Amino acid sequence: MKPSIILSHFLAVQAMGADKSEPVNYGMVLFPGFQALDVFGPLDALNNLAWQKPMNLALIAPTLKPYSTAQILPANNPHNSNFSQGIVTTHTYARPPRDLDVLIVPGGAGTYDPENIEPTIQFVKRFAPRVKYLLTVCTGSAVAGRAGVLDGKNATTNKRSFDRITPNIPNVNWIRQARWVVDGNTWTSSGISAGIDMTLAFIGDKYGEDIADTLASNMEYVRNRNSSHDPFA
Amino acid sequence: MKPSIILSHFLAVQAMGADKSEPVNYGMVLFPGFQALDVFGPLDALNNLAWQKPMNLALIAPTLKPYSTAQILPANNPHNSNFSQGIVTTHTYARPPRDLDVLIVPGGAGTYDPENIEPTIQFVKRFAPRVKYLLTVCTGSAVAGRAGVLDGKNATTNKRSFDRITPNIPNVNWIRQARWVVDGNTWTSSGISAGIDMTLAFIGDKYGEDIADTLASNMEYVRNRNSSHDPFA
Repeated sequence: MKPSIILSHFLAVQAMGADKSEPVNYGMVLFPGFQALDVFGPLDALNNLAWQKPMNLALIAPTLKPYSTAQILPANNPHNSNFSQGIVTTHTYARPPRDLDVLIVPGGAGTYDPENIEPTIQFVKRFAPRVKYLLTVCTGSAVAGRAGVLDGKNATTNKRSFDRITPNIPNVNWIRQARWVVDGNTWTSSGISAGIDMTLAFIGDKYGEDIADTLASNMEYVRNRNSSHDPFA
Repeated sequence: MKPSIILSHFLAVQAMGADKSEPVNYGMVLFPGFQALDVFGPLDALNNLAWQKPMNLALIAPTLKPYSTAQILPANNPHNSNFSQGIVTTHTYARPPRDLDVLIVPGGAGTYDPENIEPTIQFVKRFAPRVKYLLTVCTGSAVAGRAGVLDGKNATTNKRSFDRITPNIPNVNWIRQARWVVDGNTWTSSGISAGIDMTLAFIGDKYGEDIADTLASNMEYVRNRNSSHDPFA
């Protein structure tokens, strides 16, 4: 074979391999004021999957201290509630894992504070091009959008924040009527619990629909299988 | 008024107060091998509620170290996955908060290991009689059942584990066809994601259905409002 044919054959095989191989290494971004279910809806499904597939998870944040769901701005906690959860991190934005197949970016009220979320935007900008699949949940797509990694792509976001977020990130083709949106290697979900449906769809696509169905059944979760069925649009 | 009439009047007012007052102080039990969504489905709804109501949360576990979703038994992690999340605790079983309105007991594979779950059973046995409301999610009802605090009550549990759990805890009136069950001050849910529906129903009952509906809408979660509608029974 001529070198160009060998190269194109090699690339084709590599592309086939990339499509067919099951993701192994996952990363979840954490920042102050993340939304609990944005993180733990997808992770519950993936935790259960990891009992039947070899998988690793990195919890990546600005520093190695635990990160909390607590509100950043006192004005958003008017009753001075002490009601939050802190999650242990495993990696920092400065020293992330070398290779990840999947990066997941959650949302939450912490994304509204520009200073608070800037390190996460910079990390996603730098790191998202290195992963095979980028998944965002809820206002996590605003983080990825502001990082520029959704430019020119179809995407969705939290429906209650849709009109606030989308005009300020004009290079993304925002889709309102969508439980989740797939564009190439990028998966974006609507608000909070939509992340569960997106993750089960991602699992179905990458590991098999039978596995996704079994996981949903074990979670006693009624899947929304139709990405454009969006009761909250 | 005669003393007995004064006393019964006092008890009636106290009972009315207990029914009408909104719960403020919550505790969530954690143990090795808890199920992520058993904890964070209910807590996501309650986190959001705590932004509009004064509420406090204690995360109570055997020790003050973080507790993880990781499988306890290597046999249950056949591919040696490194895929888990650790949650920071705030209180121990030896030094729990003085007064709690609500105690929540999650389930998970960690409940299957008798040695692993025994400290939690002992804590629930001692502490549940002191709270106004006991809520269990998934196999958390097996923990409460083995603690004896569901004796004589209607309750439900994870449907995939129903036939394994219920014969060994014969003093509970187990109900198979139920998304969740309320018996007096005790709320038990079916598996994993059923905890979200139960928690939204609890919020509706204690703080108002309008508030529960708004929370569900903000979570972009389609509520199952019918406690006996159980697609997984």
